[in-house]
Amino acid sequence: MEDKLTIRIGFVGLGIVGQGVWKHIQRNRVALSRRLGVRLDLYRAAVLDRSKKRDIRVPKSSLTEDPMEVVHDPKIDILCELMGGTTLARKVTLAALRSGKVVVSANKALICSHGDQIFQVARETGGHFFFEASVAGGIPIIKVIREGLVANRFHLIYGILNGTCNYILTRMEREHLTFKETVEEARRLGYMEADESLDLDGWDTAHKAVILAFLAHGQWVRLADTHVEGIRRITLEDIQWARNLGYKIKLLGIITRDSRTHRISVRVHPTLIPGRKILANVDAVFNGISVSGDVVGTTVHTGRGAGRDATASAVISDIVDAVAAIKRAGGGSHPEAISQPCVDARRELDLAHLSEIKGPYYLRLNVLDKPGVLAEVATEMANHGVSIASVIQPKVKRPKLATLILTTHTSDEQSINGTIDDLKSLKSVRRRPFLLRIADFDD
Amino acid sequence: MEDKLTIRIGFVGLGIVGQGVWKHIQRNRVALSRRLGVRLDLYRAAVLDRSKKRDIRVPKSSLTEDPMEVVHDPKIDILCELMGGTTLARKVTLAALRSGKVVVSANKALICSHGDQIFQVARETGGHFFFEASVAGGIPIIKVIREGLVANRFHLIYGILNGTCNYILTRMEREHLTFKETVEEARRLGYMEADESLDLDGWDTAHKAVILAFLAHGQWVRLADTHVEGIRRITLEDIQWARNLGYKIKLLGIITRDSRTHRISVRVHPTLIPGRKILANVDAVFNGISVSGDVVGTTVHTGRGAGRDATASAVISDIVDAVAAIKRAGGGSHPEAISQPCVDARRELDLAHLSEIKGPYYLRLNVLDKPGVLAEVATEMANHGVSIASVIQPKVKRPKLATLILTTHTSDEQSINGTIDDLKSLKSVRRRPFLLRIADFDD
Repeated sequence: MEDKLTIRIGFVGLGIVGQGVWKHIQRNRVALSRRLGVRLDLYRAAVLDRSKKRDIRVPKSSLTEDPMEVVHDPKIDILCELMGGTTLARKVTLAALRSGKVVVSANKALICSHGDQIFQVARETGGHFFFEASVAGGIPIIKVIREGLVANRFHLIYGILNGTCNYILTRMEREHLTFKETVEEARRLGYMEADESLDLDGWDTAHKAVILAFLAHGQWVRLADTHVEGIRRITLEDIQWARNLGYKIKLLGIITRDSRTHRISVRVHPTLIPGRKILANVDAVFNGISVSGDVVGTTVHTGRGAGRDATASAVISDIVDAVAAIKRAGGGSHPEAISQPCVDARRELDLAHLSEIKGPYYLRLNVLDKPGVLAEVATEMANHGVSIASVIQPKVKRPKLATLILTTHTSDEQSINGTIDDLKSLKSVRRRPFLLRIADFDD
Repeated sequence: MEDKLTIRIGFVGLGIVGQGVWKHIQRNRVALSRRLGVRLDLYRAAVLDRSKKRDIRVPKSSLTEDPMEVVHDPKIDILCELMGGTTLARKVTLAALRSGKVVVSANKALICSHGDQIFQVARETGGHFFFEASVAGGIPIIKVIREGLVANRFHLIYGILNGTCNYILTRMEREHLTFKETVEEARRLGYMEADESLDLDGWDTAHKAVILAFLAHGQWVRLADTHVEGIRRITLEDIQWARNLGYKIKLLGIITRDSRTHRISVRVHPTLIPGRKILANVDAVFNGISVSGDVVGTTVHTGRGAGRDATASAVISDIVDAVAAIKRAGGGSHPEAISQPCVDARRELDLAHLSEIKGPYYLRLNVLDKPGVLAEVATEMANHGVSIASVIQPKVKRPKLATLILTTHTSDEQSINGTIDDLKSLKSVRRRPFLLRIADFDD
């Protein structure tokens, strides 16, 4: 054992995930060491408060409150950035890469916003940056797309990427709770990000979708160029009507590439998925990703999308890849093969506008309960060339007001939005109709 | 481009899968070359008949009818063994490794029977052997288990690993066809292996389960030490009763490791899976694998398990890994990290006997249609300590004969087999009762 190379790991951030990584490496050290042919040393960690109680055995002397001490410690080979945020985390990541450390990160917000610069610096310094834990927790989706499915061009990738939203939608469906009630429970269970908008308004999903788009297409799409909707407007009623129609509502991150125009799109919105699809049955805090490539067809991958242990599993697999990168650094290093996606990354970014997206839609209208309303609505839709697939008029609960649930055949964003604008101006329609997209992906 | 290293690929066997690999590399050559930093040369192929028509453009001069010409060609860097069989394929594989070539294989039967020797030779020569395409076609399950989930010890891996059996069971269920009718159709569609027993009697599934067991536990289990049952005795009636009980019947390969005794087991048998499970909804020619690890929890992976393109996707990902291995061969080569599983592979193989397996069971009995039979059967079961969970007595179709469908609570193989032996000897039971296992995996 003693003649083995020692690889020293430094942590910046030793919260839930960091402690999980520490614990599982400690516990599994012999097997990892045998497999890797090196000794893994849990060397040092920067924390906010050295004296805080922790669930793991970590000597006080290994702790510092200054992140830059870890970044600049020349003995450290691998730096795990598990602090979150984008300001200090970015400084730490870039400085570590420049000082020759391999960086392992779970920080999706950072990668989404600054991935371009991070990979640039990694290329310049011949360094490595691994980020398996940034998307879909324990599911090794980054390795799957970048290595396992390297033979493919990906026309469609979509997935449930935020466990908190999926938990909320599942609880609403199963327990017939309102959005508000379920959010309160998620809060109590500690499932929500400190900034709840990250979960509920779809931004966390968008961060991950941008990372998947980079892996698949080699290009960094700016958040400003994505279309992002969250789940705040979904009602229990929507979930129940979707279910009656044979669908489940899931918040999806969707990355498409048009095989003719090669234009790509990244969007996040709640979506009705046919109940027979695997992803329709990925419930609670689980994540699931469907990946369609031109060679392999469609593969689907599910698992826990968050939580201490699942995320630690991903971080440790990155540490193992980092050790391999360090071991071969003397000889034929091939950062390109590791850090770059397979497709033609030199092409100019060519984004599809949301208006090009086609598909069926779900509409919920609040209307006056009087004869002739459906005829009025149907006429407006026909005027926009939007064809109705199904209509449900539930029993009236409140006098004079009724709900109307409509689904359409394939239409497009322009027609459906025009329809909604005109429906809204009808006297018998009480509020702006609520729109959801239906997934009829051909996968 | 011209100063790039050229990597020459040789094929032994250029059938359906080989032509798929050839075609997709040809089509995607620019992107692969850019990503890998090498020029991929489809250099030479050994075939049975040079003059045969093929779907791909391949110069006659690249073809030979002597496999050993490809094996011994010093210009070839990567040899793809896509011929099948175990005698010549083994000779080709070992000779290629000994001559310093990286070998890529889709040959599950070979790996199952001779993996021990192949990896031994790869270790001795410092060579590499990649085999992603040998299990579950396009699903990169080998990379997922060996790299993506490297942090884990796996207490349970199970999956639908044979697309043909799954196609047959799905068709029977959906179209209410008999086993015989569906097998004839599978034959007509070319879905069956030349040796049909490989599919129908579970041996192909067993080959793949043995490979997964090696990946997870680092040990080669002999086929003789596995329990293998196929699907020939499944009737349409079984499928329909299972469905009524909330289950689907799937042929599963199951690899368990007891977390207390560390004993592992590899078994293949038709299994009733609860309908809510993802794998219950993996139908037709699709494969699906559920992997449960102590850190990550359970991840599930589905996709096309066979066919030209899905298998080609896996072979090409191996070729990409092979190129990386060749590029770093000058420097810090680390065959151990690539070829070896993470767990303690030096432990003696300790196999659990099937009799240790516990779970609920499904029983189909042919009984005389007379009062008191159920009481007789229930008494026998009680004598063996087997507790009944449900009983269905379908309407009698043939005079004097009835079918009885029983499910049990958790029991064990010894008790249930004792029960069956005693039931068989009852006068009112007409044939040996038919037994299926029910999956109640805690995953």
